[in-house]
Amino acid sequence: MTHRALNIVPFVSVHNMMRLVNAVGVERFLTELATFVEDDFRRWPVFDKTPRLASHSVDGVIELMPTSDGITYGFKYVNGHPKNMRVGRQTVTAFGLLADVATGYPVLLSEMTILTALRTAATSAVAALHLARPGSRTMAIIGNGAQSEFQAVAFKALLGIDRLRLYDIERWASEKCARNLARYGFDVTICDGVASAVEGADIVTTVTADKQNATILTDNLVGAGQHINAVGGDCPGKTELHRDILLRADIFVEYPPQTRIEGEIQQLAADHPVTEFWRVIAGEVAGRRSAEQITLFDSVGFATEDFSALRYVRSKLALGGFHEDLDLLADPDEPRDLLGMVHRAAVSEISRP
Amino acid sequence: MTHRALNIVPFVSVHNMMRLVNAVGVERFLTELATFVEDDFRRWPVFDKTPRLASHSVDGVIELMPTSDGITYGFKYVNGHPKNMRVGRQTVTAFGLLADVATGYPVLLSEMTILTALRTAATSAVAALHLARPGSRTMAIIGNGAQSEFQAVAFKALLGIDRLRLYDIERWASEKCARNLARYGFDVTICDGVASAVEGADIVTTVTADKQNATILTDNLVGAGQHINAVGGDCPGKTELHRDILLRADIFVEYPPQTRIEGEIQQLAADHPVTEFWRVIAGEVAGRRSAEQITLFDSVGFATEDFSALRYVRSKLALGGFHEDLDLLADPDEPRDLLGMVHRAAVSEISRP
Repeated sequence: MTHRALNIVPFVSVHNMMRLVNAVGVERFLTELATFVEDDFRRWPVFDKTPRLASHSVDGVIELMPTSDGITYGFKYVNGHPKNMRVGRQTVTAFGLLADVATGYPVLLSEMTILTALRTAATSAVAALHLARPGSRTMAIIGNGAQSEFQAVAFKALLGIDRLRLYDIERWASEKCARNLARYGFDVTICDGVASAVEGADIVTTVTADKQNATILTDNLVGAGQHINAVGGDCPGKTELHRDILLRADIFVEYPPQTRIEGEIQQLAADHPVTEFWRVIAGEVAGRRSAEQITLFDSVGFATEDFSALRYVRSKLALGGFHEDLDLLADPDEPRDLLGMVHRAAVSEISRP
Repeated sequence: MTHRALNIVPFVSVHNMMRLVNAVGVERFLTELATFVEDDFRRWPVFDKTPRLASHSVDGVIELMPTSDGITYGFKYVNGHPKNMRVGRQTVTAFGLLADVATGYPVLLSEMTILTALRTAATSAVAALHLARPGSRTMAIIGNGAQSEFQAVAFKALLGIDRLRLYDIERWASEKCARNLARYGFDVTICDGVASAVEGADIVTTVTADKQNATILTDNLVGAGQHINAVGGDCPGKTELHRDILLRADIFVEYPPQTRIEGEIQQLAADHPVTEFWRVIAGEVAGRRSAEQITLFDSVGFATEDFSALRYVRSKLALGGFHEDLDLLADPDEPRDLLGMVHRAAVSEISRP
């Protein structure tokens, strides 16, 4: 059976995503991806922004996150099932799609479990570029699961962070994190507690996984001038920071209607002032204004970031060899002749050797 | 690279869907699919019902249609771009996914351009089984595009309809329809107008494609006892029936909040009485009550029908040979070791011959 181009959608499997990331290099991948993320934040007003469409169950949530810039449409399928880890599955898996708005035809299907980890880290680093003190070199990472490592590499690639202070309630997680990061040339210290980890850090990244209102970081631990990159508090009932920190910090968010429900600021009044981060990128408002200011990027992950990541992957398909052709779209010779196409397929099946 | 089962999602391509339909047989496929549709209508209250999430543009719409029965989650991606036909593309293309609610892991990805055509026809036939006069043998089909042929075969398979009266403003469409249906043993009459087509028909199926408020069928043409299967009026601003017909008919719909926006009843007051079709299947209310009653199934297509269709396809995978393994999910040996998995992939790449 011959395929005409119209019915084919390029598909980037997990295997090919890993090959692509390795071929490009993790640090360069994150750096290039960050430019796509930044570009899309800059043109934020053109995006069709919809709250994610969530289907909740006892064990977790399945979400669809669509967006569009008027030319290209994208969505991500993502689940969140904390108990999965206990049975050797990912807490979060994802895949995504881009489509041509003019025709509605998909133009890319891609795994996004790995890609989401990369885009989350790239987005955090883009924010820190504008919000952390210039010359920042030391980052504390509280919670040393899968995302922590991507955060570390992104902050090295984009900000030059080269000293890490790791803490996790499970020490083996910190050790695994240090091991995976060995090749990147960090000066790594595994710490015995949050207090020692954040001591002297320019940037504090919180990226713990427990689905509960936790207090990973208390107010007394946060010093003047620190940038807090709050990644782990990302759904209703899941926060990491003590409320008093939020009251002292200048808070930057992706999309306020979503962050007020899912982010750290779910602890605050609905009208607590926050700054939309895209306005910083667009030059409308200042990011960090002084060396003493405490800045907080209250990140929950937004559909435009997935869109940026898919756009970046699509741009890389030109390299060749990193995708498969997926026969996803019916393409009869005559669009009104769908049943005829089915009938003809039977004939071609029989006539095969 | 070896794949463990966890990372693999079965994928039914267009090619394999056509092979599956032909292997099962179009009529049997529709008949079996109808039992899945009927089963899911019967347990309607268990479904998580969400209005479709639509992204509108100048040229069309891209929609995500999710639902869940608490055990399995499903969604369909579908576009509607009327102008596509002029450039040799499908007006509607679709694909769909099923996932396990307990883990959020996808369990089936399938083309749904062909499958949607089949499920729409199967749903219409299920409705007619309960709403058309017993012993119906003649169906008029107004609009002879791709969907009309699936409608005809479904009505033959489920109701024994063996006489067709076809009308389309383009005669070649009727001729193509008659040609594709030749193998199914219908007595086919191609008619010169709507009036002659509906004359004496037990069932009138309207399935035209123009996106406008049209009057395909006027009130004087509808006789006592007829069942109207209104398929084509399925989005805001697109209707096929004169309002007076609606006022005379007993109207059955899938999901009132959606049908009042998208169906023929968008022409009526928001509180005009309609019957939810699932209640008929569940035995809560009667379908047809008399030989004179005019019944109308105001079909717009609902997410549960796609869910039923995907469930049916999944049940057929046991036949073997009708799907490919898609490497869609990242599956590190240790869920928290995603970056380590990426690193190890590079090593395995280099060590390949």
